[in-house]
Amino acid sequence: MGPRSIASISQQLRAGAATSVEVTRQALDSIEQVNDRLNAFVLVDREGSLRAAEEADRVLSSGSGEAGSLTGVPVAIKDIIHMEGLPTRCGSPAYPDEPSDRDAAVVNRLREAGAVMVGKTTTHELACGVFSPPAANPWDTARIPGGSSGGSGAAVAAGVVPMALGSDTGGSIRIPASVCGTAGLKPTFGRVSRAGVETLAWSLDHIGPLAATVEDCAATLQVLAGHDPADPPTEPSPPPGYSEHLGRGVDGLRLGILATAPFSPMQEDVEQAFRVAAEHVQGLGASMVPLDIPDLTFTLAAEFAIVGPEAAAYHRRLLREAPELISPGIRELFTIGTIVPSAHYLAGLGARRIIRDALRRAFNENRLDAVITPTLPATAALADQEMFDYGVMEEDVTSSYVRTTAPFNLSGQPALTVPCGFDRDGLPIGLQIAGRPLDEATVLRIGAAYEATTNWSEHRPPVSVEA
Amino acid sequence: MGPRSIASISQQLRAGAATSVEVTRQALDSIEQVNDRLNAFVLVDREGSLRAAEEADRVLSSGSGEAGSLTGVPVAIKDIIHMEGLPTRCGSPAYPDEPSDRDAAVVNRLREAGAVMVGKTTTHELACGVFSPPAANPWDTARIPGGSSGGSGAAVAAGVVPMALGSDTGGSIRIPASVCGTAGLKPTFGRVSRAGVETLAWSLDHIGPLAATVEDCAATLQVLAGHDPADPPTEPSPPPGYSEHLGRGVDGLRLGILATAPFSPMQEDVEQAFRVAAEHVQGLGASMVPLDIPDLTFTLAAEFAIVGPEAAAYHRRLLREAPELISPGIRELFTIGTIVPSAHYLAGLGARRIIRDALRRAFNENRLDAVITPTLPATAALADQEMFDYGVMEEDVTSSYVRTTAPFNLSGQPALTVPCGFDRDGLPIGLQIAGRPLDEATVLRIGAAYEATTNWSEHRPPVSVEA
Repeated sequence: MGPRSIASISQQLRAGAATSVEVTRQALDSIEQVNDRLNAFVLVDREGSLRAAEEADRVLSSGSGEAGSLTGVPVAIKDIIHMEGLPTRCGSPAYPDEPSDRDAAVVNRLREAGAVMVGKTTTHELACGVFSPPAANPWDTARIPGGSSGGSGAAVAAGVVPMALGSDTGGSIRIPASVCGTAGLKPTFGRVSRAGVETLAWSLDHIGPLAATVEDCAATLQVLAGHDPADPPTEPSPPPGYSEHLGRGVDGLRLGILATAPFSPMQEDVEQAFRVAAEHVQGLGASMVPLDIPDLTFTLAAEFAIVGPEAAAYHRRLLREAPELISPGIRELFTIGTIVPSAHYLAGLGARRIIRDALRRAFNENRLDAVITPTLPATAALADQEMFDYGVMEEDVTSSYVRTTAPFNLSGQPALTVPCGFDRDGLPIGLQIAGRPLDEATVLRIGAAYEATTNWSEHRPPVSVEA
Repeated sequence: MGPRSIASISQQLRAGAATSVEVTRQALDSIEQVNDRLNAFVLVDREGSLRAAEEADRVLSSGSGEAGSLTGVPVAIKDIIHMEGLPTRCGSPAYPDEPSDRDAAVVNRLREAGAVMVGKTTTHELACGVFSPPAANPWDTARIPGGSSGGSGAAVAAGVVPMALGSDTGGSIRIPASVCGTAGLKPTFGRVSRAGVETLAWSLDHIGPLAATVEDCAATLQVLAGHDPADPPTEPSPPPGYSEHLGRGVDGLRLGILATAPFSPMQEDVEQAFRVAAEHVQGLGASMVPLDIPDLTFTLAAEFAIVGPEAAAYHRRLLREAPELISPGIRELFTIGTIVPSAHYLAGLGARRIIRDALRRAFNENRLDAVITPTLPATAALADQEMFDYGVMEEDVTSSYVRTTAPFNLSGQPALTVPCGFDRDGLPIGLQIAGRPLDEATVLRIGAAYEATTNWSEHRPPVSVEA
């Protein structure tokens, strides 16, 4: 796997080839090296991370066997996730500069696993958008890194950290992972606690990793997954051991192919890369079943009917008391979310049920282990680009990115993106793999098999940390 | 226990002192005897019930040990619950006369336990109201039997059947049980499947028994409780054996007393009966903790903010295509439910969370096993009565009945009502016992201890079947 993966760093640390203080200093230095171009980090915790690295080195050198799977490895945290002692600004001027008084559940779990958190990454304002200004894409700094976890995507793609946490309400992990060329996993709804994370839409929000490799996504999920009474929908049953499944290949698996609406239309280069990727997976021994699920065309309508009202309810005080601190587009979405008839919201919940049932039926009737789709119909947009032109139609950037990722927010199924090629401009393309609820193991296994037999993950972007 | 309880009938049947065909014929005859005054039944299934009774007699006389807990016992079903071969009219001219093509999950479970279903009971239109016209109260036929499970309350109180199923969205089991002088149990949200039952508000609907005794409520719950994939919120863990707990008394239990708002104001006779009942339970060995939970005053606002939109969404086609088939008051509630801003509905869900958390805190901080309250602040209203006059305020009948029962729909906790006296007009008064989620066992145990040491359940109303 790549030179800057969790696995490779952890191996170095355990072999004594490097100390955590060294790799953490490298990460901190690399932020200085690239952040003026990428704006991936909004906050760097030099002091705290070096202290954590020293502690990790003590644990590692003691040989006590107490080292966790992430001990000493530098990682980053999306800035909607609370870390005690650091502010949580949510990409919004409405959030205070005062340090937070608590760790999110996922931060706690990373800490306990020994991870060294070097800083907080840029998010689109209130986690509600796919552009993440002022962050930029390491493959072309005139382009967006996606969003809302855009800083996490840029940080991982540039090689600053092997893993950064993101959140995903309608694609916000998979979009930046896809356009930045990293792996990214939205776990099953309820697999990972959201306690201590700022909400966008509580019935659709998920937390998960953007990482250098699929193996790193698995290692991170292993740490994050589990029940938390503070987030009641979290699954009571413990997670399986994900790494055990990773090497099993795809021979004998049945995969559905989703490439009709809402996955089409897509850019020509995306279509080509997806077709080649599907053939590649088939060549590895999976059987493929082309699917067409017309109910999925409700995706955007359902997603926005739910996000608007839930986000408006969560931010109601801000919307009432300081609306001028919300940027116009988001304020409009929240205001509409407040005043649309409840029938509209409930119709959104109804459409979600239809989508979930349609996907479940497709899985059951075709005895599928997973489905594959293009992660996005398009590659990274320019920072000032409003529309994609697909020939058959023009479509705004947000709708384009959300229509292919949000089906699995609505259904709650786990969905992974892995790099599967580049377009004519050298921009990364993503392959999405979605599985049965709580079956992240199979999704990761398919992603790992694809990754192990291709070399897309090893390409480095123009803005990248020296190896 | 009473002469017409499940326990007594079952004992007779097993002892060979009567056959199921005999007791079923008695039930069918008694319907003819009282139904012109009570209108408790909208449909009598003479043929089907006698066939089931014959089958029950075969099982009972075979001595094969295959008899279920309800084998041969006549019971009744609220007419919002589907029974194959019989129409489901929901108290509404909008529902078809055609027979239903399926059994509700609870009907299946009763069938499998050997129960003989003699007919379907009157419901308030679309389960949305507390009057249940044209059904009347056996204690005074000028008065309402409560609702929406009014026919079930009247049928059990008059001794036609020892148990009738009801549903409870904001009190619709406990209200008729209380004003008709029967026991009635709303189980924990998710304890009993709602598959095959017409919906009022899916996040608040519960199914449960109205019955002659607490023991009969326990026996019925034992049959009804359990997971059902067709109703996803149903609890996966299996229910305990309820009857084992019934005889354990209340010695050493800690009970909270709720008698402040929204339980006050109440009628003077209700207040008196409740005080005496609380002293009685204390005399049996329970410690009592007076509580005041101000957040519960949000009850009515939260209940109606949720019921309107959910009911309107469920009935949207009817509301659009044949609004003239919905009576004006309900149509207004549904129409408002359609057009209120989604923020109003979400504020209702928010208030529900506040109420649930406040109750949980009260239970935890005071280490409570249950709370007791007056089931209703008032006894049975006259059929044309609009308001109750509490001196300090006037209040419409619906709000009066719902404000004391709905807290436990909103919190999802189990709540039982048992008769605890009569007012100056000879009308029954109910004592409500609410417990921790999924702890119906304790609630039933307290109710059984109270019932065993008082004789309120043994009084017979003026309109009653000959013993």
